Amino acid sequence: MENFSFSVPTQLFFGRDVVKQHLVTALHHPKKVLLAYGGGSIRRNGLYDEVTALLEAAHIDYISFGGIEPNPRVETVEEAIAIARHECVDFVLAVGGGSVIDAAKLIAAGIYHEGHAWDIVLGKAVIQTAVPLGTILTLAATGSETNSGSVITNLATSEKKGWGSPLVLPKFALLDPQNTFTVPHNHTLYGIIDIMSHLFEQYFRQNPLTVQNPYQEALIETTLRQVIATAPDLLANLNDYHARETMMICGTYALNGVLRIGSNGDWASHQIEHALSAVYDIPHGAGLAIVFPHWMHYVLTKDPETTAPLLAKMATQVFAIQPLADDIATAHAGITALSDFWRQLGAPTKLRDLQLTSTDILTDLTTKTLLGQPSVGHFLPLTAADLHQIFASLE
Amino acid sequence: MENFSFSVPTQLFFGRDVVKQHLVTALHHPKKVLLAYGGGSIRRNGLYDEVTALLEAAHIDYISFGGIEPNPRVETVEEAIAIARHECVDFVLAVGGGSVIDAAKLIAAGIYHEGHAWDIVLGKAVIQTAVPLGTILTLAATGSETNSGSVITNLATSEKKGWGSPLVLPKFALLDPQNTFTVPHNHTLYGIIDIMSHLFEQYFRQNPLTVQNPYQEALIETTLRQVIATAPDLLANLNDYHARETMMICGTYALNGVLRIGSNGDWASHQIEHALSAVYDIPHGAGLAIVFPHWMHYVLTKDPETTAPLLAKMATQVFAIQPLADDIATAHAGITALSDFWRQLGAPTKLRDLQLTSTDILTDLTTKTLLGQPSVGHFLPLTAADLHQIFASLE
Repeated sequence: MENFSFSVPTQLFFGRDVVKQHLVTALHHPKKVLLAYGGGSIRRNGLYDEVTALLEAAHIDYISFGGIEPNPRVETVEEAIAIARHECVDFVLAVGGGSVIDAAKLIAAGIYHEGHAWDIVLGKAVIQTAVPLGTILTLAATGSETNSGSVITNLATSEKKGWGSPLVLPKFALLDPQNTFTVPHNHTLYGIIDIMSHLFEQYFRQNPLTVQNPYQEALIETTLRQVIATAPDLLANLNDYHARETMMICGTYALNGVLRIGSNGDWASHQIEHALSAVYDIPHGAGLAIVFPHWMHYVLTKDPETTAPLLAKMATQVFAIQPLADDIATAHAGITALSDFWRQLGAPTKLRDLQLTSTDILTDLTTKTLLGQPSVGHFLPLTAADLHQIFASLE
Repeated sequence: MENFSFSVPTQLFFGRDVVKQHLVTALHHPKKVLLAYGGGSIRRNGLYDEVTALLEAAHIDYISFGGIEPNPRVETVEEAIAIARHECVDFVLAVGGGSVIDAAKLIAAGIYHEGHAWDIVLGKAVIQTAVPLGTILTLAATGSETNSGSVITNLATSEKKGWGSPLVLPKFALLDPQNTFTVPHNHTLYGIIDIMSHLFEQYFRQNPLTVQNPYQEALIETTLRQVIATAPDLLANLNDYHARETMMICGTYALNGVLRIGSNGDWASHQIEHALSAVYDIPHGAGLAIVFPHWMHYVLTKDPETTAPLLAKMATQVFAIQPLADDIATAHAGITALSDFWRQLGAPTKLRDLQLTSTDILTDLTTKTLLGQPSVGHFLPLTAADLHQIFASLE
């Protein structure tokens, strides 16, 4: 494996009623909390009332900031930063899914930053400090609750870009599976696809043929098998505590660094999807459902010598496919198994399933994927010409 | 699963030459380092010279303290504490295996503690602060390099006891598989047995029949399979970098909290072994090799209804045994497979293999296992009468 460094400093509290049990002590006496949330589902399901009642009972001052969008926008973050500065906020509490948490990270970084928050995302400005933040997760998907990454959309330029800093690593994460009960079927499914995609991104890593990393492969295969085994039960019964619980811990482990172990990962599919949702504002998981099997098919066809062995291993170890005549055939069977699994759960497989097209904007999508770099991905680096073909195949 | 909290704050640096690359920056300008080590293997293999050369080049003052034993003794720790106080040490750097690191933790805690260090181990004294410590690991085994636990032996009372505190969690851990090349065959094997035992302790958890925890079980089974697949290659070629690498990361993951996920674990076998090595000063891994299969056999025989299902699952998932007529038969086959695997690698299976006996001191061993508690273990709690029988079976 490659050399690596690793720690998971965020204090995770997991299980029934952890918000009530741990929120106030985990906050460590802030002067004023910015309570950041999304479209209002937490107002409808009672979590907002629970959190504010806990803050009030502990005499912790707070100000609410709702309305953070899926694919959270830098414009909204700027608005929150202005309010947070005016109110002298010294703690950001994100209550929501990955979008709310990602936005909260940029709010926490932006409060002390002079200039536009987008410069932080672009890496033009390097933050020196940030307001501490904590997370209460309501959707198993992005893993953002215990890592230092964030993905933000700029509507003015229709760009969507990831950034990160150890300074915005959450101090704590409160994960109660009960808080995900009200996530509807489609977003539960998109979360599952996002989790599986994070596992694939780390599985298909640089130099698979020369660098041994059997333990990482085995851990990721195990996590994928667990998600695949749990997903149908969960989607059949959205109030199944054990299924919600398993999916929630898998979502966190999929992107808290535990499964990365000396691997750069690929991440081309995420960059491709970011371009799609920057342009079309579709749910990240829906975009990934369309992109990932096509990405697999493209890299397998373009360079089977490099890509077939690990794709075939995925087929046999994750989807229990019996090895066929050669790795290429086995790999194709694995990609079909993945595609079938997601489609049977109800996910889109083509852009036309969402009434969208890529034909007219292939160049624009490619530019928004590359974001100024000559290529994306590590498993098989992809140039503009490759991306053109992949985007065309998504139609 | 049970509610749980989780974080891995220790900064792990893993791979070739990480000591040279990261030691000085990770130390953060201490005034004086206590360099704690063991029987002198690091003086023979060059690691001591490498570390002291790095400290000297960075103008970091240090004092060496060698001679920490396997089954590290509180008497030795007291000696080190006296020196560290006299020398105004403000950082403890442990270079060695689990014994050195465990001793270093008690040294770090004891420097600011008035009174005997054994009181910290007994829990009679609660520490409020500790000198920071870091670790350079030379033996894949205990997992102590990135957790807050420590096991110390008191020769005067022939007791061996675990204790822990977040205050002695290492600030960093430098793991270079090359630093384990010179570990001889027998201690490499004992390390492997220790790692597998940590996995078993967490696998056989409280209430296995009522509390679902499929992802934890799957992760532990995967790690056990990885250790089992790697062990023969490693023992056949002690300089196999990839095998050393895989075993080292498995050893850390086996006890850094990542695999615990909402499970109390059992830990009776460790307490039984601690009694054995407190009395006989045998290597911990050798003791565990003798204890664990006997413990499994005893709990299976005593209460098959409670214990057979998970023991049978271990048999099928870890040792690839085809299910037999019932769980009890499958479980027995699994225990035999474990016992055979360890014996074939060269481990002892009975006390007589080490020219030892338990017959005359059954009561003493039982007392030293219980340490004042009415029972040990959670998978199936064991009383004095149970422990008598288990110790007698080890003969």
